[in-house]
Amino acid sequence: MTIGVLGGTGPEGRGLAMRFAIAGHDVIVGSRDATRAAETVTALVAACGERVRGRLGGGLNREAAERADVVIVAVPYAGMVATLEALAPLLAGKICVCTVAPIEVVGGQVRLRAVDGSAAEEAARTVPAARWVAALHTVPASALLRCERPLDTDALVASDDAAARVAIVELLECMPGLRGVDVGRLANARHLEAATALLIEVNRIHGGHASLRVLGI
Amino acid sequence: MTIGVLGGTGPEGRGLAMRFAIAGHDVIVGSRDATRAAETVTALVAACGERVRGRLGGGLNREAAERADVVIVAVPYAGMVATLEALAPLLAGKICVCTVAPIEVVGGQVRLRAVDGSAAEEAARTVPAARWVAALHTVPASALLRCERPLDTDALVASDDAAARVAIVELLECMPGLRGVDVGRLANARHLEAATALLIEVNRIHGGHASLRVLGI
Repeated sequence: MTIGVLGGTGPEGRGLAMRFAIAGHDVIVGSRDATRAAETVTALVAACGERVRGRLGGGLNREAAERADVVIVAVPYAGMVATLEALAPLLAGKICVCTVAPIEVVGGQVRLRAVDGSAAEEAARTVPAARWVAALHTVPASALLRCERPLDTDALVASDDAAARVAIVELLECMPGLRGVDVGRLANARHLEAATALLIEVNRIHGGHASLRVLGI
Repeated sequence: MTIGVLGGTGPEGRGLAMRFAIAGHDVIVGSRDATRAAETVTALVAACGERVRGRLGGGLNREAAERADVVIVAVPYAGMVATLEALAPLLAGKICVCTVAPIEVVGGQVRLRAVDGSAAEEAARTVPAARWVAALHTVPASALLRCERPLDTDALVASDDAAARVAIVELLECMPGLRGVDVGRLANARHLEAATALLIEVNRIHGGHASLRVLGI
């Protein structure tokens, strides 16, 4: 499977590209800037070596969207809608995974921006022809980037497209130590985005790389 | 320490009353209906036996608020503000722990009501003279009520009163297997209330008694 990562040069995008490539998928690291995409690929290959060679390519977000079977949206919230509007025809019919949390920092404090429901639902309204899934909000970039270590956390996966939800739970479980957990419809993405804000606060207070595990299921 | 539980006859309130009493605290189970409070106490003593005898009392919410050193607010959201308005003078200066999530069920689906920030911040605006803490949103009543089993989860604790936050983290850790986690200011209660909604969805889908653990700190 070919996975395209929009915003693939940011920490979350880099971590996901690395983990997917290690698991044997072909990955296109997308960026607004093709040079930065190429530099990111070089750095990831240097960090991960033979395991990922030949599986990581870089290019514009447009190329990542076009060539991918599954698209990961890992751009900052501020640019999300504009990025998706520009790529809409290329995303139609594809499973798109929104990892975006509409975070802003006001007076040194992290908070969620007032959005209409969730960033994921905004993404779905922007490109209704894609098959939208929200996931990975509570899997920290810092953990993804420590590629020698298995993860030890859950990826909470929301979508109104049951088949896409199942496909993404399965896809994410290619990463050792990551359990995919179906959390229902896309409207629940607002709770996942809230969890990102909560974990940022937890990290600020406790100095860790916090993630969440659902117990009791 | 004497702990008063407003709404102590509901599942979360009963579970907390039971756990606090087992841990050696004196607990007043509060209710709008003194008879229901007394019946709840009888049932809890029958379930827990000698370990709680003499430590559990029942009464009106007013009596629970008056006699308590720490007040747990475990009423449904719909009645929260009216309950607190009526008790405001009795709560002044006391640590009050808001466990309320502003959940509603619409068309068979659980969602968060649109509140101004969070139920906890509404509580704090209603009784500004109390020392407000938000906690216990992700600790399921079903787990609290299985009193023979240690818990295996985290209680996420938010407050603008640092001393109250520390006191509640410490108090909650009287329950075996429960870790208190400081999650910062009261404005973060909105993320905890969102987590309640998420866990209700998880339970609906997976049929469990889901709770959350923060990993990586």
